[in-house]
Amino acid sequence: MDLHQPEQIISDILAKQNNLSTVAFVGCGASKADLYPAYYLLLHNSRSIRVGHFTANEFVYDTPSWVDDTTLVISASLGGTTPETVHANAVAKERKAHVVSLTQTKGSALTKDADHVIIHRFSENYAAKLEKMGYAMALASELLHRKEGWAGYEKMKAGFDRIYDLAQKSAESVKKDATAFAQAYKDAPVIYLMSSGASMEVAYSTSICLMMEMQWINSGYFHAGEFFHGPFEIVEKGVPFILMMNDGPTRHLDARALTFLERFDAKTTVIDALDYGLASAVDKEVINYFNPMLLVAVFRVYAEELSYARQHPLTKRRYMWKLEY
Amino acid sequence: MDLHQPEQIISDILAKQNNLSTVAFVGCGASKADLYPAYYLLLHNSRSIRVGHFTANEFVYDTPSWVDDTTLVISASLGGTTPETVHANAVAKERKAHVVSLTQTKGSALTKDADHVIIHRFSENYAAKLEKMGYAMALASELLHRKEGWAGYEKMKAGFDRIYDLAQKSAESVKKDATAFAQAYKDAPVIYLMSSGASMEVAYSTSICLMMEMQWINSGYFHAGEFFHGPFEIVEKGVPFILMMNDGPTRHLDARALTFLERFDAKTTVIDALDYGLASAVDKEVINYFNPMLLVAVFRVYAEELSYARQHPLTKRRYMWKLEY
Repeated sequence: MDLHQPEQIISDILAKQNNLSTVAFVGCGASKADLYPAYYLLLHNSRSIRVGHFTANEFVYDTPSWVDDTTLVISASLGGTTPETVHANAVAKERKAHVVSLTQTKGSALTKDADHVIIHRFSENYAAKLEKMGYAMALASELLHRKEGWAGYEKMKAGFDRIYDLAQKSAESVKKDATAFAQAYKDAPVIYLMSSGASMEVAYSTSICLMMEMQWINSGYFHAGEFFHGPFEIVEKGVPFILMMNDGPTRHLDARALTFLERFDAKTTVIDALDYGLASAVDKEVINYFNPMLLVAVFRVYAEELSYARQHPLTKRRYMWKLEY
Repeated sequence: MDLHQPEQIISDILAKQNNLSTVAFVGCGASKADLYPAYYLLLHNSRSIRVGHFTANEFVYDTPSWVDDTTLVISASLGGTTPETVHANAVAKERKAHVVSLTQTKGSALTKDADHVIIHRFSENYAAKLEKMGYAMALASELLHRKEGWAGYEKMKAGFDRIYDLAQKSAESVKKDATAFAQAYKDAPVIYLMSSGASMEVAYSTSICLMMEMQWINSGYFHAGEFFHGPFEIVEKGVPFILMMNDGPTRHLDARALTFLERFDAKTTVIDALDYGLASAVDKEVINYFNPMLLVAVFRVYAEELSYARQHPLTKRRYMWKLEY
């Protein structure tokens, strides 16, 4: 990850428009989820920037009234061909917004209406899969620093220097646990996902992408803080849950859900950022934002093992890439 | 619903703090979901107000840095005793935010740290269940009007004059369809919910509250715009879906999902705002925001019929009201 790029991009945009007022994060599925930590960072820390997080087609069909040349649109698509996100870029551009797009594919359709493109890696290793998330947060952190002098800025930079190695090493260390998980969950009729804080949409993308899309397993997801306001009534002995625990301010919410799951003998798998030494790698003040990167890397191994145990490759699809819809 | 109350409350708050910059909507479960249309209205239409939507315990444990006397916190809890939301009010008050709380219970714990309380009805009939949602939107619309002179303001007021009767009549008209739905879905191993636009969290609360909490049925939910980016791979003949269709800008997203569900013979139930004449009752420009009110009222009858068919009362619980957690 090259931090000069987000720095330069934010500099260029602020040179053109000093009154940047609003940031819209736009994507679909896992790419939308990868933008959530950056959204969460701005939502919780900025005192002046307005911020929204949109699935691309909602941005296209019910475009917020305020999209104009004071708006920064940060969009993402892995391959750069997601039609709805490509369309959202066009809408943003037509409204004179500043468009920054994250994709792994140079020259892809997504780059057409983007003022700035960041090419991230994905397939190289577990750490590479986190670059999309990392670049989005680097853009958010840079903007916040430049506009408001955010105290967390240098700590985010230091965190970016360390998180990729930590995430890669953590992922490489979990094969045994992941294999046990796969054996225990391979015949589960439904699997629920839970997390909180900046990791909420890791639970989301794990549920709708890794489980439903890539394994055809029934799945639901919710915020650990919402668990006690509905979903917990589904719990009884053996109901399968995956809890992605955060180290940081929302840990209490995750821990409270865990206590309940254990009390009533749910089938519970915990992926806990604390187990991988996140706190020793990144500053306490910004730890919240690095949880999702660690959790994504580690859980990828669990998903791979699940796919082997079920003899259902992660790339197998019924519809995607096969037909028009 | 008495529109003078939201008018007076926003007047009082703006008299004290003319620089109101941010609105935080805070609640848990169905009460959080009931605040979503108001959040969506402000997010899409305001050019100056910053806005966030939080599950209460995340607001408590990871309180946004900006909460101060320029913040309006709008919180909701049906009975007014939800501990996390009561706690969130205390946090907001301590930070000198202006707190408006919606509850059906005068003098409940939620009212303790609220500067303003709106008592809504709930149990009287189907329409009464919409007042929480309606008051939250009336507060949002009033604030937007006073701060920015929103063009939709008078149209929202006219809509509030008609939506309750329309929703009540619509609910009363669907018993036959609801009974057929209940027979078709009573043994479903899992039920998925989908919607879009301002109705997104109607799908959410229907999934986590009506299905998981009140019927102990496995369930998942997602945005119709996200359907094609993961969840649609779960579709095959007979997989049970409920699609809550909106009349308005995001209708295309719902319709596209429906086409796919029908193409692959999913077991699909559609609740469509268009079928109940929403467009003849409210102005096109603000129709988006009235979809969730209509959908909640109509689907309540479906949920009741499901509970009869399954001989599982909507009030039956394993844990809630029975133990500490």
